[in-house]
Amino acid sequence: MKRSFASDNNAPVHADIMQAIINANNDDYVSYGDDPFTQKAKELFNHKFGAEVEVFFVCTGTGANVSALSHLIKPWQTIMAASTAHIHNDECGAPEKFTGSKLHTVPSLDGKLKISQLQPFLHSVGFEHHAQPGIISITQATELGMVYTCEEIEEIARFAKSNDMYLHLDGARIANALVSADKTLEEMITQTGVDVMSFGATKNGLLMGEAVVFLNPELARGFQYVRKQSMQLISKMRYVSAQFVAHFQDDLWLQTASHANKMARLLAEKIRHIPRVKLTMPVQTNAVFAAIPKEIIKPLQEKYYFYVWNPEIGEVRWMTHFNTTEEDINDFVKCVEELLD
Amino acid sequence: MKRSFASDNNAPVHADIMQAIINANNDDYVSYGDDPFTQKAKELFNHKFGAEVEVFFVCTGTGANVSALSHLIKPWQTIMAASTAHIHNDECGAPEKFTGSKLHTVPSLDGKLKISQLQPFLHSVGFEHHAQPGIISITQATELGMVYTCEEIEEIARFAKSNDMYLHLDGARIANALVSADKTLEEMITQTGVDVMSFGATKNGLLMGEAVVFLNPELARGFQYVRKQSMQLISKMRYVSAQFVAHFQDDLWLQTASHANKMARLLAEKIRHIPRVKLTMPVQTNAVFAAIPKEIIKPLQEKYYFYVWNPEIGEVRWMTHFNTTEEDINDFVKCVEELLD
Amino acid sequence: MKRSFASDNNAPVHADIMQAIINANNDDYVSYGDDPFTQKAKELFNHKFGAEVEVFFVCTGTGANVSALSHLIKPWQTIMAASTAHIHNDECGAPEKFTGSKLHTVPSLDGKLKISQLQPFLHSVGFEHHAQPGIISITQATELGMVYTCEEIEEIARFAKSNDMYLHLDGARIANALVSADKTLEEMITQTGVDVMSFGATKNGLLMGEAVVFLNPELARGFQYVRKQSMQLISKMRYVSAQFVAHFQDDLWLQTASHANKMARLLAEKIRHIPRVKLTMPVQTNAVFAAIPKEIIKPLQEKYYFYVWNPEIGEVRWMTHFNTTEEDINDFVKCVEELLD
Amino acid sequence: MKRSFASDNNAPVHADIMQAIINANNDDYVSYGDDPFTQKAKELFNHKFGAEVEVFFVCTGTGANVSALSHLIKPWQTIMAASTAHIHNDECGAPEKFTGSKLHTVPSLDGKLKISQLQPFLHSVGFEHHAQPGIISITQATELGMVYTCEEIEEIARFAKSNDMYLHLDGARIANALVSADKTLEEMITQTGVDVMSFGATKNGLLMGEAVVFLNPELARGFQYVRKQSMQLISKMRYVSAQFVAHFQDDLWLQTASHANKMARLLAEKIRHIPRVKLTMPVQTNAVFAAIPKEIIKPLQEKYYFYVWNPEIGEVRWMTHFNTTEEDINDFVKCVEELLD
Repeated sequence: MKRSFASDNNAPVHADIMQAIINANNDDYVSYGDDPFTQKAKELFNHKFGAEVEVFFVCTGTGANVSALSHLIKPWQTIMAASTAHIHNDECGAPEKFTGSKLHTVPSLDGKLKISQLQPFLHSVGFEHHAQPGIISITQATELGMVYTCEEIEEIARFAKSNDMYLHLDGARIANALVSADKTLEEMITQTGVDVMSFGATKNGLLMGEAVVFLNPELARGFQYVRKQSMQLISKMRYVSAQFVAHFQDDLWLQTASHANKMARLLAEKIRHIPRVKLTMPVQTNAVFAAIPKEIIKPLQEKYYFYVWNPEIGEVRWMTHFNTTEEDINDFVKCVEELLD
Repeated sequence: MKRSFASDNNAPVHADIMQAIINANNDDYVSYGDDPFTQKAKELFNHKFGAEVEVFFVCTGTGANVSALSHLIKPWQTIMAASTAHIHNDECGAPEKFTGSKLHTVPSLDGKLKISQLQPFLHSVGFEHHAQPGIISITQATELGMVYTCEEIEEIARFAKSNDMYLHLDGARIANALVSADKTLEEMITQTGVDVMSFGATKNGLLMGEAVVFLNPELARGFQYVRKQSMQLISKMRYVSAQFVAHFQDDLWLQTASHANKMARLLAEKIRHIPRVKLTMPVQTNAVFAAIPKEIIKPLQEKYYFYVWNPEIGEVRWMTHFNTTEEDINDFVKCVEELLD
Repeated sequence: MKRSFASDNNAPVHADIMQAIINANNDDYVSYGDDPFTQKAKELFNHKFGAEVEVFFVCTGTGANVSALSHLIKPWQTIMAASTAHIHNDECGAPEKFTGSKLHTVPSLDGKLKISQLQPFLHSVGFEHHAQPGIISITQATELGMVYTCEEIEEIARFAKSNDMYLHLDGARIANALVSADKTLEEMITQTGVDVMSFGATKNGLLMGEAVVFLNPELARGFQYVRKQSMQLISKMRYVSAQFVAHFQDDLWLQTASHANKMARLLAEKIRHIPRVKLTMPVQTNAVFAAIPKEIIKPLQEKYYFYVWNPEIGEVRWMTHFNTTEEDINDFVKCVEELLD
Repeated sequence: MKRSFASDNNAPVHADIMQAIINANNDDYVSYGDDPFTQKAKELFNHKFGAEVEVFFVCTGTGANVSALSHLIKPWQTIMAASTAHIHNDECGAPEKFTGSKLHTVPSLDGKLKISQLQPFLHSVGFEHHAQPGIISITQATELGMVYTCEEIEEIARFAKSNDMYLHLDGARIANALVSADKTLEEMITQTGVDVMSFGATKNGLLMGEAVVFLNPELARGFQYVRKQSMQLISKMRYVSAQFVAHFQDDLWLQTASHANKMARLLAEKIRHIPRVKLTMPVQTNAVFAAIPKEIIKPLQEKYYFYVWNPEIGEVRWMTHFNTTEEDINDFVKCVEELLD
């Protein structure tokens, strides 16, 4: 089989997660979430966040982002994000379609946005011709594999609150960020002032596991209707909830993320010594960005799945996942070396 | 465990389907559908429809309906449906939100709509103040468990075409309809002139299995973007596709639907003889509608899951599924008898 | 020239209104409403409503209805209205498009809705599959020319409030209703508990004069952005505001409406005595509905503009306006008589 | 009275236009455009464009832009525009709300976009995660007062067509651009390959005069419903149409625009010689952009209306209009000189 460095969602389902699905398949249960698996999963979320949060399971990462944003924004407000944001680049315009709102993006090389970039939007406040600042959306870890520090998140959250905006965090790879920063969910999310997050676990070994988490339950009021109206309400929800239970069990989620990150560091470590290969981004989570000679891209893609990030400079993205092995890394590096030989 | 007559989506996943999921969990595969399982599933769809169709897997039944409708309609057109339609009653306004279109409904007792009810809408054609007829949407089997004959579908399709409308069919329970009418997909859908259908399999033993099928591939152009923008693109799609492969294998889907229908007939057969219980709808698929003394509803719900359909007349809905057993039926009927004793 | 009984918006602009436009054309003024004409018009609105209201001028009646509804509703809520409502029949689906919400209509013969018809919607409350009751919208005078009593409005307002809904009133012909009921704006709107109204004056002698009026200024917060985003912000607003000033001056608006109503009563009086002509609706404002022999419809339309309301029974609508004269009525009646001769 | 250099929509209505409104006020006419004034105005549009075009009058410039874009785009496509575009900055998010589409902007200093900036978007074509290029929108004259040459428009049109996109032109100040370039509508629009334009006349002496013009009538099919659904259908349309008739009569529109441009050149001529005042943009139409000492902005605004464009560098925008006089310019320049003294 051809191994994939294309995305962490090319990975299979972790064995423990699969077992949890099988175990849930024992009888009739009420659909749409009124079942004991969902109840248990929600309790674990509260526990991990160290707070009473409101959790809603949804179908897709895009669904999590868009339904969350839609719930907290008015159409005449804007969503502010880095130019690299998944909501801007990789959701086929779903945020605009469903929220009706404008996305205002600011340029970013590492996927982080800075408050200094958001300040100019405040000039629009109160002027009826301009869409009004509504939500700041950040991605953790960023689409470039970088991790905001807790202090950075806290600063953005303060800026948001003091300007009547909400802070949304797209946590498609939240576990990778947590283990990279050596922080807990409580420290990184609950205590920094995030209002709502998209909690992604599909990329971390689940078959399908995405959730919207409101840190302030008051803000969640009515969200059950938004979830349904955004076509994200799963009928046999127990099979998703059971995965989340297993995901949090014995900190499986942190182990899988930690392993993925470790494999990326290993790859970076080995690949950076190859002449003509240049890392283009620090490796903080499970993504390795590198510029390689353009002529080896195609032959390398015949052996391994991965994406070209910036064709002009021969920049590629290699992602590791919970199931990537040291052997995979070694084989891959060897393959690059041979192609460059 | 408490058995459910509430909905066929309270059922577990069929063992063969679960095995297919497990079997798919063997290695890395490209996400979003570019995998051999999806390829195989699509071929089976073509085979079952007896035609080159375009198939797109989506997350939810509501997602299937709404994305399909959205693709074929303009916001200033209307969707015409029976007043009982799932798209009207049970999708929390998702069709209006995502299509921007008006839903025009006509009264229906059995869930079917009749051409004579649609004729008046033609008066609006060409008058700019009125939303224009765009799509006719029918449900097969209907929300009341009734089955359109192929001739009825054909007649509606002809009416649609001759008035520049499309015909959408919500097939959340298409298998139950097919075995009830003893027809093939080719006969009931391909040959009648349906333009697009929502193909549901979740209620027929899958963990999650919904698809949008375009009978005319031309009409499908660009739908991949609609699917993504409607937040319905599943990342680890192989796990859905693999289910569909098993679903069609050895006509499993027809066996499961046939069993569910048979259990409903059995229930109807036994329950109709109980004094003070009155069937309110013929039993053509896997739903039994009955009016029962109001005072036994609550005690019966303590023993079994099911929904009250019309509280004013004590009408309830009992649904059977692939996993309902004769013993379940016997126990249930006995329970009703005891409560009425 | 061919006289029109088709609609009160076929009338010209009242001379006093035109003079006000001319008078406003004297110099540079800041656009978008920051001008003395708009200031003065707003004061007059406060005065007429006997309360501090928030007034926003918009372009069209549809624009007034849709922007007002959109401001107070969430997409997963429904707008409840009579089946005859302009927002349902005559706005080409604009409410659904812009609000994203479902319109739930109840059958009505005279254009009024009754609380007993709204009660069933309360069953949906709290059930996530169903769109949730959000706004009740009534039209005063109704599309059938009938007038709600203040008590009826008050009762609906109470029902709305006690069920967490808002009450919107489409006042495209509010002046006709007021003079018919012999009530003031304060009595009919401010004191009954309406939350927001569309205040129409175009049909009452203005070139263009539509406004959204929030009875509770708190509810208006942010509406300036909704107005702009709904494409309803008029640049040279002084020319609209100046019309409203003239409209309220010396109660011109009540005189014009009173005259229009009187002409309709006169027409009804005279026409009801013609054999084979049958009034189909009481005449309370400036619309006369009558069933006439189908064979005279076409020849009559060659002489006068008017619309067929229900072709099956030969029902037509004749509307009078501020500029309709007694002579017009006499000529029209004579024409009908001759055609029936 | 305080004279305005804030915007050309602060101007009054031209006397000839006002007279046309008065002349139209003579009798009953069918509303919504089925009147002889509208007929005549449409003929004049055909004549001026030198082609059979389809013209639809609408209420506002934003309404023209948004309804036109909405008609030609699918929600999963993007609108590409310069970062300075009115549709991006000054319409409170109306394009996103109504089209559901993403706006992709490219940086621009003079308001023009270049094909080289659009090329990168083609990388997205066919990739379902990315919104697809749909419409290119340019403004003529640009928001910075600059004028595309016919060759530049033609080149963009060719690029659009060869990549399956449409070209929309926001002509809020089209007359100013035409007289500046000394071209006819036929040369600048019809022959260059524009698909649809927003034709603005309100800023050029009308009370209210905005239109959507489709160069290819085929593309206009169904637009009457879009206009109505976007709340842009004017009931007493004759009063708008009559203005357009007068606007084209004896080339009034070119005279008024020519005068406005001349006044801007005069202002630029005189002001550029004042020390510490620096023109920041060439003057091609009726806008003058200048950087002035920040301390005189406020005192100058007490005497004249105008907007600050870039507060950081003290850049202001001064606009002239059909009614600006040489005396206005002289007084204004003198005022600046005195403040700087």
